[in-house]
Amino acid sequence: MAGNSRDPGRSVTARALSVLTAFDIDHTRLTLTAIARRAEIPLATAHRLVRELEMWGALERDGDGRYEIGLRLWEIGLLAPVNSRLREIALPYMQELCQSTHDNVHLAVRDGLEVVYVEKLTTPRAVPIISRSGGRLPLHSTGVGKVLLAHAPSAVMHQYCERGLPRYTAYTITEPGRLGRELQTVRSRGFAQANEEMTLGNCSVAVPVHDGGGTVVAALGVVAHSVRAEVSKLVKPLMPAAEGISQRLVEQDRINLDLLSH
Amino acid sequence: MAGNSRDPGRSVTARALSVLTAFDIDHTRLTLTAIARRAEIPLATAHRLVRELEMWGALERDGDGRYEIGLRLWEIGLLAPVNSRLREIALPYMQELCQSTHDNVHLAVRDGLEVVYVEKLTTPRAVPIISRSGGRLPLHSTGVGKVLLAHAPSAVMHQYCERGLPRYTAYTITEPGRLGRELQTVRSRGFAQANEEMTLGNCSVAVPVHDGGGTVVAALGVVAHSVRAEVSKLVKPLMPAAEGISQRLVEQDRINLDLLSH
Repeated sequence: MAGNSRDPGRSVTARALSVLTAFDIDHTRLTLTAIARRAEIPLATAHRLVRELEMWGALERDGDGRYEIGLRLWEIGLLAPVNSRLREIALPYMQELCQSTHDNVHLAVRDGLEVVYVEKLTTPRAVPIISRSGGRLPLHSTGVGKVLLAHAPSAVMHQYCERGLPRYTAYTITEPGRLGRELQTVRSRGFAQANEEMTLGNCSVAVPVHDGGGTVVAALGVVAHSVRAEVSKLVKPLMPAAEGISQRLVEQDRINLDLLSH
Repeated sequence: MAGNSRDPGRSVTARALSVLTAFDIDHTRLTLTAIARRAEIPLATAHRLVRELEMWGALERDGDGRYEIGLRLWEIGLLAPVNSRLREIALPYMQELCQSTHDNVHLAVRDGLEVVYVEKLTTPRAVPIISRSGGRLPLHSTGVGKVLLAHAPSAVMHQYCERGLPRYTAYTITEPGRLGRELQTVRSRGFAQANEEMTLGNCSVAVPVHDGGGTVVAALGVVAHSVRAEVSKLVKPLMPAAEGISQRLVEQDRINLDLLSH
């Protein structure tokens, strides 16, 4: 690899990708100058790369001449298994959950040491929350995060605790020993709870979603107002919904295996 | 521009993007060999580009060593305005519509001469349909397509008809003059209908969604069984939902203008 570091191809691709990395949820529309600054590339290089990315459809220009992520990149991104398999299967179950609980419903996966929200459904009656599809939150202070951490390899838990457990509210668990015991409970009773540990006033409950091999691949959760949340009432509709999604994932894995063997 | 065509940077970026283009809904998992073949690049080049795209997170490898679109590309794609503004705003309205109609609910935009489905919600009772979020369908044979074509510049209509109007069922409108009159009706009565014109047995009704400038930016539609579909009953909940989404888009545009002027 080291011998390749001066490979011009490598650096061009890396720079093209750095243009995309200049965009995030707080920077969805950028001028060319801002892209060059955020991507740390010369303006002339940024100009050339942006033009190519725009021609392909990875970037688009808005009415003010600023750049945004393009429709084509969004379309290609939807082919990622997290959307094309997981989200597509889970969506009808999430709609039903949202309809029956009138609360926020989340589907999330773990990426390294973070929760990534795959989808969030909400209703007018639901409590306002900070998550959004494609957004990231911590593993130790959210219901879905606790489920994902509880079922991750133990090395993940060690690595996560080594970085320290940031406090978000007075109720956030910041002591690794306590978190370890909590995750043990998550595994034994089959669901996780987070009581005002991320946001004061909000309570979340989450359960695991399995794939065909029995691996926990996602977490399904509900976030409600802590005052009106009754954990048992939230867990009740979550369990069959997660079971339904898991069942559909198993069926899909079987179809894929059949396709491969032919 | 012509002087830049031998610019090695340009071709490297283009080749990296061609690796992404190798993936589509029928090809979500590809071997390195398949990527090279579909992207029409040498295997060694594909190997180097795929490695870089994988390092960045644009590609990921599955258990069988095949490549898939990665989580990071999906995340960046979600920053596209079609998701981060349009879909996020429309989703709660779509959920409500889906709940009240028990049918398929679509949000779509026009990209050139095609309908692009931004989101599709469905229920267990809904009729099976071929659309999916990120999927494309024709403009002349779908409810959302007719709305988008009816409100497109007239040059789009001419260009669309010039290519010919493919027939999907016995009911598809394939005659430009008839399509023109139909689109006139769509504009005058404020909604579009497609009766078994894409798929036998399915009927769709759609209405326009406006932005702050009054431009039609999307179409909201319901697809139902043609036998049980009552157009007036479908239009009734569609109108206020589209109005609600348009209103939210206007508010958002105002906030963005305020932010810009400060």
